[in-house]
Amino acid sequence: MGLDQAATKPHEALASVLAEDMEAVNTLITERMASEHAPRIPEVTAHLVGAGGKRLRPMLTLAAAQLCGYEGPYHVHLAATVEFIHTATLLHDDVVDESAQRRGRPTANLLWDNKSSVLVGDYLFSRSFQLMTETGNLEVLRILSNASATIAEGEVLQLTAAQDLRTDESVYLQVVRGKTAALFSAATEVGGVIAGADPAHVQALFDYGDALGIAFQIVDDLLDYQGDSKATGKNVGDDFRERKLTLPVIKAVAKADEDERAFWVRTIEKGKQGEGDLDHALTLLDKHAALVETRKDALAWAEKAKAAIATLPEHAIRQMLIDLADYVVARVN
Amino acid sequence: MGLDQAATKPHEALASVLAEDMEAVNTLITERMASEHAPRIPEVTAHLVGAGGKRLRPMLTLAAAQLCGYEGPYHVHLAATVEFIHTATLLHDDVVDESAQRRGRPTANLLWDNKSSVLVGDYLFSRSFQLMTETGNLEVLRILSNASATIAEGEVLQLTAAQDLRTDESVYLQVVRGKTAALFSAATEVGGVIAGADPAHVQALFDYGDALGIAFQIVDDLLDYQGDSKATGKNVGDDFRERKLTLPVIKAVAKADEDERAFWVRTIEKGKQGEGDLDHALTLLDKHAALVETRKDALAWAEKAKAAIATLPEHAIRQMLIDLADYVVARVN
Repeated sequence: MGLDQAATKPHEALASVLAEDMEAVNTLITERMASEHAPRIPEVTAHLVGAGGKRLRPMLTLAAAQLCGYEGPYHVHLAATVEFIHTATLLHDDVVDESAQRRGRPTANLLWDNKSSVLVGDYLFSRSFQLMTETGNLEVLRILSNASATIAEGEVLQLTAAQDLRTDESVYLQVVRGKTAALFSAATEVGGVIAGADPAHVQALFDYGDALGIAFQIVDDLLDYQGDSKATGKNVGDDFRERKLTLPVIKAVAKADEDERAFWVRTIEKGKQGEGDLDHALTLLDKHAALVETRKDALAWAEKAKAAIATLPEHAIRQMLIDLADYVVARVN
Repeated sequence: MGLDQAATKPHEALASVLAEDMEAVNTLITERMASEHAPRIPEVTAHLVGAGGKRLRPMLTLAAAQLCGYEGPYHVHLAATVEFIHTATLLHDDVVDESAQRRGRPTANLLWDNKSSVLVGDYLFSRSFQLMTETGNLEVLRILSNASATIAEGEVLQLTAAQDLRTDESVYLQVVRGKTAALFSAATEVGGVIAGADPAHVQALFDYGDALGIAFQIVDDLLDYQGDSKATGKNVGDDFRERKLTLPVIKAVAKADEDERAFWVRTIEKGKQGEGDLDHALTLLDKHAALVETRKDALAWAEKAKAAIATLPEHAIRQMLIDLADYVVARVN
């Protein structure tokens, strides 16, 4: 969590300013992940929730609500809702990806089984709908149920698009909006809606979350090819080995000559990889400046996020959200 | 579907009287299972929806709404919601059970993969929440999100309870309420709520759905041991082979002597089954009258269902629902 370091990182500044609300969110999460009848549920959930993670998404909801002057109790429910949706999708993602590690620990599907991950994920989804229903606000229900559908659609699209060399930047963006940005934008948007903010401000919060989520995912995909594995906890080239067509490769494929194209067809589409292939992939990414271009895209989305939120009235939290957008892309500076 | 036979079965009488509404439900289902971006979604869903099934659960919602004099449009949304929740749980169940057949056809997880079943199930869950949100009725949102949580909780409970000989009739009932009755009772209850029926009538509809669902599941579990495989499409002893502790075995275990207990420990808890074991299990079920007693329980739940709905005003549909309760248990007469 890094809270033992100097608290200068924007997500730490946010965590500090939102500490009281986050405490309430954590209490609500613990309360609602319980199950009277099925002890397997809190076991699995606690494993994942206990592993930490920055709780970025629920913080976005709390921040948006405070920024818009909300004084009621329901931003806490919405923040817990957002975290439950996120946790449920992580559980299902690990089944889909057949992952063995998450947040540096063995995944739930490995410790228990796929069955538990599928069903406990379903439980958390249902719990999230109960939580949002308790707010009694139909507009947030509409936003969050739409976001859930967009997330699931994005994940299914990724299944078919990830190993298909015809996948271009617009399909990539659609997948990223689904798997990442939809929950970021819903998180910020519902914070504004529950506060009764005016439509232009709600739109600005949505735009901020959308652009921040896209920047966040592009950086993630970029770090997969140029990250320091000690800092990211990922090995360079995981996406390549798992044959995931992310933005750097899409950019290199678009500029590939015939030989290079044959290389991508063999390694990504057909999955026939051997020694030296990752190095050759990195050479091609370099040749076509794919990582440089990808980083430019991430920076451009961070600028969009900052421009969107700059339209809101001045507020300490507004500045933290602007800093957060810079911080998300600073990981690849 | 049996519609080519004489239309005397209660679910056929209901289907006939509700034909216009069911048509609207089917149209809405087709519309909402579409996906602009991910064609895999309607492929998988159409495979399952196209395989038929009696659409019993959405019919219960339509029937309850008509019975209570509802004249608005939203019972159609709620019926489609209930069918989407049901279809989503079937997709996830097939992953969890590693099933190869559903409704006499290969399962989606076999035709596509587990990934598609998990993610398309998630999509249908999200779609169901969108549909119910469109009704703008917070009480039905509360009921259906609670039902979803109860379903998931029941499924997780079944994971740990099904192969544990300490599972008694009360735990069995909890599992059955979760995996089957919760959606039946929510289906009838929301039909009453959307119609603005008075609380006593809503309670009667809930009680009817709850008891009908329990009777339905007990009969299913009974047929697994004494069914005609031509009529049921299941093989006798599937639950035994899959080591599922259902009501007949729970009753036999409760009366088991030391040797018999050792037999159940070996075959169900440890899963070490050999030739002749199913026959021996059937002998023990017979010795302790476990099938006869299980049938009595099913009949008692059907009577409870009938008694509950008898408190509602006279109506052609009320009679059909009474007949339906009889019909559900008549399968084991």
